[in-house]
Amino acid sequence: MIVIMVPNASTHEISDVITRIRAAGYDVHLSEGGASTIIGITGVGSPLNRERIGQMAGVQSVMPVSHPYKVTSRAYHPDDTHIPLGTITVGTADLAIIAGPCSVEGRESIIEIAHAVREAGANALRGGAFKPRTSPYSFQGLGEEGLRYLAEAREQTGLPVVTEVMDSAMVPVVCAYADVLQIGARNMQNYALLHAVGESQHPVLLKRGISSTIEELLMAAEYILSHGNRRVMLCERGIRTYETATRNTFDINAIPVLKQTSHLPVIADPSHGTGKWEYVESVSMAAIAAGADGLILEVHQDPEHAASDGRQSLKPERFAALVTKLRQLAPVVDRRLIFQPPG
Amino acid sequence: MIVIMVPNASTHEISDVITRIRAAGYDVHLSEGGASTIIGITGVGSPLNRERIGQMAGVQSVMPVSHPYKVTSRAYHPDDTHIPLGTITVGTADLAIIAGPCSVEGRESIIEIAHAVREAGANALRGGAFKPRTSPYSFQGLGEEGLRYLAEAREQTGLPVVTEVMDSAMVPVVCAYADVLQIGARNMQNYALLHAVGESQHPVLLKRGISSTIEELLMAAEYILSHGNRRVMLCERGIRTYETATRNTFDINAIPVLKQTSHLPVIADPSHGTGKWEYVESVSMAAIAAGADGLILEVHQDPEHAASDGRQSLKPERFAALVTKLRQLAPVVDRRLIFQPPG
Amino acid sequence: MIVIMVPNASTHEISDVITRIRAAGYDVHLSEGGASTIIGITGVGSPLNRERIGQMAGVQSVMPVSHPYKVTSRAYHPDDTHIPLGTITVGTADLAIIAGPCSVEGRESIIEIAHAVREAGANALRGGAFKPRTSPYSFQGLGEEGLRYLAEAREQTGLPVVTEVMDSAMVPVVCAYADVLQIGARNMQNYALLHAVGESQHPVLLKRGISSTIEELLMAAEYILSHGNRRVMLCERGIRTYETATRNTFDINAIPVLKQTSHLPVIADPSHGTGKWEYVESVSMAAIAAGADGLILEVHQDPEHAASDGRQSLKPERFAALVTKLRQLAPVVDRRLIFQPPG
Amino acid sequence: MIVIMVPNASTHEISDVITRIRAAGYDVHLSEGGASTIIGITGVGSPLNRERIGQMAGVQSVMPVSHPYKVTSRAYHPDDTHIPLGTITVGTADLAIIAGPCSVEGRESIIEIAHAVREAGANALRGGAFKPRTSPYSFQGLGEEGLRYLAEAREQTGLPVVTEVMDSAMVPVVCAYADVLQIGARNMQNYALLHAVGESQHPVLLKRGISSTIEELLMAAEYILSHGNRRVMLCERGIRTYETATRNTFDINAIPVLKQTSHLPVIADPSHGTGKWEYVESVSMAAIAAGADGLILEVHQDPEHAASDGRQSLKPERFAALVTKLRQLAPVVDRRLIFQPPG
Repeated sequence: MIVIMVPNASTHEISDVITRIRAAGYDVHLSEGGASTIIGITGVGSPLNRERIGQMAGVQSVMPVSHPYKVTSRAYHPDDTHIPLGTITVGTADLAIIAGPCSVEGRESIIEIAHAVREAGANALRGGAFKPRTSPYSFQGLGEEGLRYLAEAREQTGLPVVTEVMDSAMVPVVCAYADVLQIGARNMQNYALLHAVGESQHPVLLKRGISSTIEELLMAAEYILSHGNRRVMLCERGIRTYETATRNTFDINAIPVLKQTSHLPVIADPSHGTGKWEYVESVSMAAIAAGADGLILEVHQDPEHAASDGRQSLKPERFAALVTKLRQLAPVVDRRLIFQPPG
Repeated sequence: MIVIMVPNASTHEISDVITRIRAAGYDVHLSEGGASTIIGITGVGSPLNRERIGQMAGVQSVMPVSHPYKVTSRAYHPDDTHIPLGTITVGTADLAIIAGPCSVEGRESIIEIAHAVREAGANALRGGAFKPRTSPYSFQGLGEEGLRYLAEAREQTGLPVVTEVMDSAMVPVVCAYADVLQIGARNMQNYALLHAVGESQHPVLLKRGISSTIEELLMAAEYILSHGNRRVMLCERGIRTYETATRNTFDINAIPVLKQTSHLPVIADPSHGTGKWEYVESVSMAAIAAGADGLILEVHQDPEHAASDGRQSLKPERFAALVTKLRQLAPVVDRRLIFQPPG
Repeated sequence: MIVIMVPNASTHEISDVITRIRAAGYDVHLSEGGASTIIGITGVGSPLNRERIGQMAGVQSVMPVSHPYKVTSRAYHPDDTHIPLGTITVGTADLAIIAGPCSVEGRESIIEIAHAVREAGANALRGGAFKPRTSPYSFQGLGEEGLRYLAEAREQTGLPVVTEVMDSAMVPVVCAYADVLQIGARNMQNYALLHAVGESQHPVLLKRGISSTIEELLMAAEYILSHGNRRVMLCERGIRTYETATRNTFDINAIPVLKQTSHLPVIADPSHGTGKWEYVESVSMAAIAAGADGLILEVHQDPEHAASDGRQSLKPERFAALVTKLRQLAPVVDRRLIFQPPG
Repeated sequence: MIVIMVPNASTHEISDVITRIRAAGYDVHLSEGGASTIIGITGVGSPLNRERIGQMAGVQSVMPVSHPYKVTSRAYHPDDTHIPLGTITVGTADLAIIAGPCSVEGRESIIEIAHAVREAGANALRGGAFKPRTSPYSFQGLGEEGLRYLAEAREQTGLPVVTEVMDSAMVPVVCAYADVLQIGARNMQNYALLHAVGESQHPVLLKRGISSTIEELLMAAEYILSHGNRRVMLCERGIRTYETATRNTFDINAIPVLKQTSHLPVIADPSHGTGKWEYVESVSMAAIAAGADGLILEVHQDPEHAASDGRQSLKPERFAALVTKLRQLAPVVDRRLIFQPPG
């Protein structure tokens, strides 16, 4: 059960409600970041009179929530959440097309690819400055230098920047440059990191862990929302199965499941979801047809020589061809593609 | 390596090639059912001079095939295979829409649903007369009686019938009634059954095993093709993963992978692929957007009281709404939906 | 709910019970093979008075069974089932050590290996005459010729023979030669085959499907038991997971789960469970320590040149060393190893 | 390829080797924490003369390492690594028995259970002060207060303390109290955390990620070792599969695979590996029989009321019975159990 307070509820009113709940033996989880304070009731206690609490001063409504996730659930917030991203608003009819290289490899190359993806139809730029790599001997990213190059690319193209943050200690520095904080699949249950981005007010792109269930993804989002940041985009990026023909198995089912159970926007990552560029077009079309709010795609000028993930990166001309097909598909599913004019 | 003989190669010519290959220490696998005899070379022997064999009498061409599947591979047959199904041809621009109940439950109900799905836009009828059930205590299907009802439904509606065969001994009786033999997921590696349908000339709908790899699916098809029956449709129906929010995980990646590696048509089964009717529309749209040649869908007048799989069955009106959306989607992916006039 | 009749219940008494159950709207599943007839109650009907039925003539007891498997469950039969196998009894303190090659490759080789495994401590011989192979171009086994060689090896060594049957039509011929019918992983849900072996009275070794759940394995056993054959050994042989360091993931948990939920003996197959001979010893020890009733192991004189599965086959001397270690382990888990004197 | 310097190599000698490698176009990864500096060669360059480098001043040996993990591999360090833990040495014949509650719930309870597990035969104490929980509304642990109670329990019992650290920023505080730093499954690829514990000299218990491959586990260990800390115990704790009868599938195969490919000790966690206390004894016996160097087990006075993981916790008397069985098993696999006298 959660108690939603009116937007301007006083501290006194909030504490009265808390006292009542605690008196019945329950614990309380306070979520204060959004428009209104939400009081989550946890633990075990004696029966609570829902109607009585609903009549207390400052209380807007009381809701039973049977899912383990609460603020994230559509039961709590029936309308789609809208998240501004440059000139579009994610979660509306606008399709988000986030494109760019796996890693920022240098100043010239990221600026060049940013121009290329914008011209082809992207409305945001991706690129990793801090790279989580399975091997300590692999390229680990350019770090803050990479963030500066991303910011410069944004200045030239107008594209907002999506980039990964890997450790709670790094949240401030990444916030200083990025428009959207990406939480990678390996860190989906790094709770210190979720806590830290939950306390920022930056939009977050939260990737599903490589073998996380849909419910675990929603619970990870709940960590962020319950710490006050409601601007979370969920990202399906393929799960680990026994199949070896592709790098991961893109879970197309997750798209309608997430749209049904949560109000947060859903972004698809067919690059990681397939691991091979030749399947990216088909799965991108599929994801939008299934109801995704956008795509995040790896695009590289010279995939054969990319520092990472070349096997799954599209060349700019293939990316442009895909955007053309998406433009035809969009109206069939009541969506539209908005062109980003140069910055 | 495989040797493809000219269509009218003589027994003498074929046996000369076989003698030459065996002399080098190899085994030979003869595939004689299609237009031309194909000689597969297996085992280990001394190096063969491909050019020399190519010059022997009656030889059309000699191909290296690196996949374990050969006749099934697109390397062997670069063009899409076409399979007639009622008034459409699967594997062309025509989308196959196969719809009907999980099980045939009675004469009236199957005839009623056949009319309903035809009117809504289906071009073939599905329905199980022999049902593989996890429990020996569950409804096992009406058997041959069910086949007779299916045939009657076909007579009234003109819809060709797709139905499952579960044992090699039952192939003749199912062939007597059905237009397409379905091999279920549990029997994908029932080699005696694959052999038996391979020797029939009936079209086959081969479902991917619940945790079979894409390569294993192609190898199962190879059993059928190498016994002489080239009319096989591959069916992606979801795989078993750790995710429990849906009954199976529909492997959308499998669609472009199968279309790239094989010439056989690919049919998607979003009913089993999701296990919940509310996700069937999204995943159907996704499958067609990804390049599938058709759909097989469970439709039932009264899903709550279906003898099996009610949870994943669409009501006729929802099925009709889905067909309307597919009709809008089809031209975006160069496909078309053909309406089946009453039989 | 199931009704267990007294061993000598008359046809009249049985039919009275059935009539009563059907009158309440239920279906009935009759299981007549064992000592006493069991009447399973399935479907949906009006409430049954359990006590009343328990008082009917010929009724021994009435049991609620909440599992989907009934005759297979330990709730139905609390004592361990005992299955004679040559000079030992599986399901008692005797450990079953079933060893031999993957495939019967020829007369001399199977007789030679049979002597070798008997001398090293095996008490049954395994070997495939009919081989389920992923590729139609791979060696498919010697067929009935292989069965004859197995029978000859039994005659010389006294070792009972365990061999696979792949199709319902082949059950009679395999019964004519084998002591135990093996159902392979690919056929665990081949219901026509389960039905056929259920009607024989031959002991069965039922392998878990490559991605079957433990419950599905028990349901497959239920098909056999409910058709009258109670002599089933369950076999854990590794499941399919994302891990690629080994061929399969041996599910050690399945051993205590199966022993707790069912009364049937459990045999472990570390050869398929690991796929690499160097891990077979460790996993064999583990399986016995976890409570398995025996092992089935691939042993080959010359694994590098085996027709199949050489990578996971032990050489006879390694097998002998393993038996020596098992002999030390056995008393720790209240087991013993019985030496099979020559035939 | 890696270059191992002599223990007292000078900075000058090391830099000469680095210069030579870089001149050929390679990158260098320096590992300086252990007895001797190791220079890893990464990236792509022109062929290196291994013999020439081997003759440079200060070089002890040059090794080709084909695995992606290097310092972690047995090829690099053929002997078992020994890690002192209280009165035993992990990685020798001594079996490590680490036992205690999932979470530290209070001062009295942790001290009570510490005495109980010591008396029953444990030689180390486990207990979580910082708890990674799927839900933000679940009990998150007592934090530093919990660490103080653990330290007090160690003082009274002599048992060294194993406890989890969840964020790089918390490494110093956990080091101040704990004897062994546990990295939980969710954080196996939290590279900032691996880096931080790699720079400490505290022993580490590194749990396998819930769906990490064995190779990824070894690569995570490589992060720690390559940052200078060689005292890592690998922990198999069950992986995520489709099976739902148990919480996880304990990967028994991983034990011989890890012992073969790495020199690090391997600890088994049957509590998480099964998720149900009734299977813990069987799987504990199996793990030791398979070659594990020790066990980590959840033990709780009152599992029904545990703050977390009660379903998989043994009561002290069951734990004592298990230790008695392990004592019988140990000599069969050349191991021994050492009793920890009170602190």
